[in-house]
Amino acid sequence: MQAYQQLEARQKKIAALENAMGILQWDQETMMPSGAAPARASVLAELSVMVHELETAEGLEEQIQQAEANVDALDAWQQANLREIRHGFVHANAVPADLVEKLVIASSEASMTWRTARAKDDWNSLAPKLDALFALKREEAAIKSAALGVTPYEALLDQFDPGRRENQVDSIFADLADFLPGVLAEITAKQAAEPQPVSPQGPFPIEKQRELGLELMNILGFPFDHGRLDVAHHPFSGGAAGDVRITTRYEDDDFMASLMAVIHETGHALYEDGLPAEWATQPVGKSRGMTLHESQSLLLEMQAARSSEAIQFLVPVIRRMLGGRGDAWEADNLLRIYRRVKPGLIRVYADEVTYPLHVILRYRLEKAIVAGELATADLPGAWNELMETLVGVRPPNNRDGVMQDVHWPEGILGYFPTYSLGAVAAAQIFAAAKRAEPDLLPGLARGDFRPLFGWLDTNIRSQGCLYMPDELIARATGAPLGTEAFKANILDRYLAPA
Amino acid sequence: MQAYQQLEARQKKIAALENAMGILQWDQETMMPSGAAPARASVLAELSVMVHELETAEGLEEQIQQAEANVDALDAWQQANLREIRHGFVHANAVPADLVEKLVIASSEASMTWRTARAKDDWNSLAPKLDALFALKREEAAIKSAALGVTPYEALLDQFDPGRRENQVDSIFADLADFLPGVLAEITAKQAAEPQPVSPQGPFPIEKQRELGLELMNILGFPFDHGRLDVAHHPFSGGAAGDVRITTRYEDDDFMASLMAVIHETGHALYEDGLPAEWATQPVGKSRGMTLHESQSLLLEMQAARSSEAIQFLVPVIRRMLGGRGDAWEADNLLRIYRRVKPGLIRVYADEVTYPLHVILRYRLEKAIVAGELATADLPGAWNELMETLVGVRPPNNRDGVMQDVHWPEGILGYFPTYSLGAVAAAQIFAAAKRAEPDLLPGLARGDFRPLFGWLDTNIRSQGCLYMPDELIARATGAPLGTEAFKANILDRYLAPA
Repeated sequence: MQAYQQLEARQKKIAALENAMGILQWDQETMMPSGAAPARASVLAELSVMVHELETAEGLEEQIQQAEANVDALDAWQQANLREIRHGFVHANAVPADLVEKLVIASSEASMTWRTARAKDDWNSLAPKLDALFALKREEAAIKSAALGVTPYEALLDQFDPGRRENQVDSIFADLADFLPGVLAEITAKQAAEPQPVSPQGPFPIEKQRELGLELMNILGFPFDHGRLDVAHHPFSGGAAGDVRITTRYEDDDFMASLMAVIHETGHALYEDGLPAEWATQPVGKSRGMTLHESQSLLLEMQAARSSEAIQFLVPVIRRMLGGRGDAWEADNLLRIYRRVKPGLIRVYADEVTYPLHVILRYRLEKAIVAGELATADLPGAWNELMETLVGVRPPNNRDGVMQDVHWPEGILGYFPTYSLGAVAAAQIFAAAKRAEPDLLPGLARGDFRPLFGWLDTNIRSQGCLYMPDELIARATGAPLGTEAFKANILDRYLAPA
Repeated sequence: MQAYQQLEARQKKIAALENAMGILQWDQETMMPSGAAPARASVLAELSVMVHELETAEGLEEQIQQAEANVDALDAWQQANLREIRHGFVHANAVPADLVEKLVIASSEASMTWRTARAKDDWNSLAPKLDALFALKREEAAIKSAALGVTPYEALLDQFDPGRRENQVDSIFADLADFLPGVLAEITAKQAAEPQPVSPQGPFPIEKQRELGLELMNILGFPFDHGRLDVAHHPFSGGAAGDVRITTRYEDDDFMASLMAVIHETGHALYEDGLPAEWATQPVGKSRGMTLHESQSLLLEMQAARSSEAIQFLVPVIRRMLGGRGDAWEADNLLRIYRRVKPGLIRVYADEVTYPLHVILRYRLEKAIVAGELATADLPGAWNELMETLVGVRPPNNRDGVMQDVHWPEGILGYFPTYSLGAVAAAQIFAAAKRAEPDLLPGLARGDFRPLFGWLDTNIRSQGCLYMPDELIARATGAPLGTEAFKANILDRYLAPA
């Protein structure tokens, strides 16, 4: 038991550093004066090193082994905590320090190059940096593959979605790749034959948009005594344990984008806020990986807030707050805007029907990269080809093609699938919640999210990392992660007779 | 040389933690949602423990000794850095861990009690907590006295103003206690015979006040690319290296208080901003203690900004920004308000003539407390007595008497003198700058602070902790710290014929 207690004390230090970094990173994106950037980067780097030192300290493995030898003395939460500590230990210690350093340098160089090269559509500058980085990522994947006993790609994915297996992702994505293109064509044809949506005319004063965002957050039960809303260049959810901070941005000719960002990030924040407070400083008290995290934001944004019931409630709020009048502000029209499906080049602007196809493309390519089966030089061609096959559009340049995302230049491989696994999980979890809570949809229609959130609190949020991701989903929904609810929602929402 | 480099590396870690804490503390006072307070306190406590662990690590003293044995291999800045590292080591290691813990608990209890007891004028609740805390402070002072080879009171003072000696403070304060009461009577008599100041009538919209503050900060050359202005309950200057953040507060019927706070805190911030950037992560790159820090804020607030020349420039700016009209907005009247001298009970509201008397009172009492010559039970009586002798007013209750400051309940003894030593230093440094820069006063009259700041940059700010405080003052001004310039300024400003 003593070894376990020492592990908890060490995790408490790590949590303090991570919480500090969470606030520093939030501050960096929202408050920090620009000239402080180099000093801040250096402070964050130094704190990261301290975390890494705590995670790789001498004697730590023996401590974990001792705790594991006495695992029967621990309760279920402590046992899960120990499993998570072991998991973190493997990820922190598998890769030798010199490779870690090479990865930091290579990803820093690739992402710096990306920033300027993307704007200039200059693939040739980026390619050699990416190539060097990918080679190092393959080394990392091979080493972690051996340490975790999983495939190299799974070893990368495991950091974001622990325990996830390739064959499961393959099967879910094959199903979607089979289903979506045809449905996409049907939906666009159907929408072309319907009345066309009319955009409400701005400008929409930013102060009004902010008030609308705050009003919605209030309706959603955002915990303002434990959180904030601010402005940042890219919307995100961050902060620290017990202090959830989300951001949005405002365009004065488009209030929808900001509003959807607020709802999406509120979903992330409510997940964090609902984690078990008594485990706040321990790994078991953290969110259950990126698939689950994305499921919570997409459940709110795509499943709940875009349901007919919620829109029925939200439209009058939006009209009242923004003072809109006329046809463009009718519920039917706003619903049409909300639900417009339009295949495009850019992932972050994609609708919920097209989005998974963008992800499947990236998943297939990054698997080939990790397997060493796709040369970096061939990446733009492979991207454009697959884009045409899956989404039906072909990028006219690399800026809006292979260079559009920051993930690969930052060395983040194995992350993309979690966006769409999260969307699939969101549909499945929402469907289960609806079955369990008959008042859920009527609640949304009157702006009452408590039936939904009560169920989420019990079945997802409060569970932290007590279970592995798929076990959590199966326990909450009664079935393993699958595409059924996702597909049913698309068909019902977009292709059911009015 | 290797030992020294290791010490620098350790200091870099400490600096990262301290910088993180600086931003977290700023955030706590300006941005943090209230419900996050307990979690934040726990994160800050954990980071403090990490700093303390780095400062008291095994083998550290041997490392310092090795570096000291090879001191000739170091340049002047490195040698000064090593001296500061040794100084920090003594303060961090002299007091045994169990006493440190007792002090943390006792000061936490006393300050918690103070918060509620002060409002209720309830000395009897506070007294036992203070008494217990003072007993522990005497233990601390005795231990540090032995470690530093100075008197017990000096050992406490040394943490805030390194190297400062009691006999020097005694002599400066005796001089002021001799000079000020008579002068105070003369000034109040003179001001009573002059036209009475008229208060400009508010309300002064807070947004206008904020714009005025920002405009003044611009005139003062506040580095907005490395700093911010925000609102907090108590004005302060904080942030991190290369990221200086000040706060003020706004009352809509009084723009002066906020404005003076902005100027005062800008003085602190410009000192921090002017410290040698190449030493930002090392002790030698820090500010030269609290007397020097206060000298830099008071130099700006009391010496420069209240000079006739600066007021001549500032009054039109204030009138323009706030749109003031009429007699109350004439330069003469505003000058009268600025320079109103009125003995009162409360230190933080005191004018520059009365202020040192408040400090001298506290200095005398806390010396007696540390010496064990004043029982806590006798403190209120001693306070009221001395208040009447020095300032000429007697507190009707303890709330506005002995209980008005947070310092003692927080266990901060040896800090008060630095306020007035700072005021004395400010006058001496300003006088030296005026002698060296003939364009200094003409500069202020046209809103150009560069002649002053150029001199301060060279002689004070850029020097960090290269010298001990008194050596820095003597090198900058050509004389040891003394009251001459301070007294001359009071006589000239308040008693010279118009």
